[in-house]
Amino acid sequence: MTITSNTVRGRTDLCTAIENELSGLIGKRASAATAYGPDFARLWALAGQNVLGGKFVRPLLLMETYDALQQEHRRSAQPRHRETAISIAAAIELLHYAFLLHDDVIDGDLVRRGHPNLIGSLLAEAGETARTQTAGAQTTGEDSARSGNGLHWAQTGGILMGDMLLAATHQSFARADLPHELRLRLLDLLEHTINETVAGEQLDVGLGDGIIAPDLQTILVMCRYKTATYTFELPLRAAATLAGADFGIENALATAGRHLGLAFQLQDDLLSTFGDPRRHGKDPFSDLREGKETAIIAHARTTIAWTDIQPFFGRPELSVGDGEHVRRHLTDCGAEAFVQSLIEEQMQAFNHQLTSTIPESVRNVMLDLAGQLEGRQS
Amino acid sequence: MTITSNTVRGRTDLCTAIENELSGLIGKRASAATAYGPDFARLWALAGQNVLGGKFVRPLLLMETYDALQQEHRRSAQPRHRETAISIAAAIELLHYAFLLHDDVIDGDLVRRGHPNLIGSLLAEAGETARTQTAGAQTTGEDSARSGNGLHWAQTGGILMGDMLLAATHQSFARADLPHELRLRLLDLLEHTINETVAGEQLDVGLGDGIIAPDLQTILVMCRYKTATYTFELPLRAAATLAGADFGIENALATAGRHLGLAFQLQDDLLSTFGDPRRHGKDPFSDLREGKETAIIAHARTTIAWTDIQPFFGRPELSVGDGEHVRRHLTDCGAEAFVQSLIEEQMQAFNHQLTSTIPESVRNVMLDLAGQLEGRQS
Repeated sequence: MTITSNTVRGRTDLCTAIENELSGLIGKRASAATAYGPDFARLWALAGQNVLGGKFVRPLLLMETYDALQQEHRRSAQPRHRETAISIAAAIELLHYAFLLHDDVIDGDLVRRGHPNLIGSLLAEAGETARTQTAGAQTTGEDSARSGNGLHWAQTGGILMGDMLLAATHQSFARADLPHELRLRLLDLLEHTINETVAGEQLDVGLGDGIIAPDLQTILVMCRYKTATYTFELPLRAAATLAGADFGIENALATAGRHLGLAFQLQDDLLSTFGDPRRHGKDPFSDLREGKETAIIAHARTTIAWTDIQPFFGRPELSVGDGEHVRRHLTDCGAEAFVQSLIEEQMQAFNHQLTSTIPESVRNVMLDLAGQLEGRQS
Repeated sequence: MTITSNTVRGRTDLCTAIENELSGLIGKRASAATAYGPDFARLWALAGQNVLGGKFVRPLLLMETYDALQQEHRRSAQPRHRETAISIAAAIELLHYAFLLHDDVIDGDLVRRGHPNLIGSLLAEAGETARTQTAGAQTTGEDSARSGNGLHWAQTGGILMGDMLLAATHQSFARADLPHELRLRLLDLLEHTINETVAGEQLDVGLGDGIIAPDLQTILVMCRYKTATYTFELPLRAAATLAGADFGIENALATAGRHLGLAFQLQDDLLSTFGDPRRHGKDPFSDLREGKETAIIAHARTTIAWTDIQPFFGRPELSVGDGEHVRRHLTDCGAEAFVQSLIEEQMQAFNHQLTSTIPESVRNVMLDLAGQLEGRQS
């Protein structure tokens, strides 16, 4: 998911605070890692580069919501637990990166946003290491028999680094400087989030592997679980908990976040298939080539156009001409319009939540986020 | 690692307490999982079967050490934190299983101790599911194009279930009913343990993939990090922390545990290669076929016998005759005796620790464990 960065007063300060916290969390682990040798230390160095180069969408949502809730409720008092909020916001970014890493292992991806991901970097470096070692080794026959193991080594690094980031996330939650009751609420939230995200990842893989039937309802649930929960619900609920907001407000924020999250996810699918590749920078037919089960495809399957689309769906060798042919069919059969209507439904439900229970200052944070949905090109 | 179960007074009661705690930890998650559909719930059901079928080596070591320390220090007082000790002991079993699962994904293993592991079970069930779905589906062409994805689906289940068990381990540590200071010490211990285990796993994979040079020192460090730390040092240190033992005692236990752990690991290697397959039940040449970098092989590489051994090392198609030939060479070149002498060194260092700082009651727990090393056949 891409959320275009917006100039909002105070956002630069927030970014700096989040970045400092993340630098601290990763830096102390990266230093400790050197005691275990260069390969282990390299995992932390690469993870640090990748995490610190992120846009901090989730931590920013948490902190802006937290600050808005504080402003609403405690105009005169000192903000409660603000330092802790920053540490939880940073931990959520580590969680995001742990999920991305294991997702990349599962999908066999070596690249993210046009750059090598951690696995891609390890793979490139393993090539060099293997060459260096072969040159100095006495037993070249053996070494050459083992060439081609770089991918295994690199993907192992992805699994292991994901494990360590998942551990680091829990360490931050477990050590949060909060009354025990509040810490337990955040730990509950973390557990709920991991369960839903894992359930979503499993559904996504089951759909892709043809293990789970690709009906629309399953695809919508998968989108919500896999991304919306940890991207929107987690930071919003954490902000409400830390700011001491009513449970009613926390629930309204979570519901609004789920609707917005699903809208973003559906729009991602529309952009991937119908968007301008010069703007979003991705292969315009990659979803079709991969046979990705989206809401667009789920609708198309229910129309007579599917007999024309199906032969091309999931074909890695799909040509540009074939891709354009499929895209025309997806528009003509109403799949594009159908998904647009799903997005509108989600946005209406989102707006309904906003105007009912959510305090005005927080409403602006949410509207600002929702505004990024409109006119999105990437 | 196999540690033969010994009849020790009270062990049955401890096993029951640990089993009840694990049933609770897994049971509540397994029930909650049903809300996310049958495939997600299946992960928890399979994990529960596997975890509850274990021997509880690590939780038993923790509890027996804890009880012995309590007996030593507080003959009259109520035991401190005993319920919490049981919950930490159970959490360590979940951590063990999380490591096993990710290790099985990394090694591509589908079987453990002669039975399908979680991945093997998911793979078998995916075959059935895929057939069921194909029979009922409208689009059989597509489905058959996707057959063969069962392994991907099953290994994804292994990664995701490992993540959830790692999360569950942290949840137990984070929620431990202890003064905050003590809880933080256990969290430090957990972090240290995960770092070393991950570093050990990475070394093991690097050795296997030919990325890291297979010298003896690296292999011994790998054995210690990958298994000894979480199997011996973690339960022993946790027991000392929970029982309120002096830091000197905690350190002596950890050092003794590391020596014993390495001795067990080296003996595993000897048994795999030179042991009686009717007793240990494994393929007697699997380590040689896989090209596993052990201390035996590291020694053999430094002898002239290596020119005779090398052509057979890491050959999946190794015949029984060739295997016996290699085994004879490994004995004749002194590799077997060398590793036996390494084990003796570790046991001497272990005994030295025992007789210096460790209280007598705990000494018996450790000697009981060490006694299982002698005459081990599996």
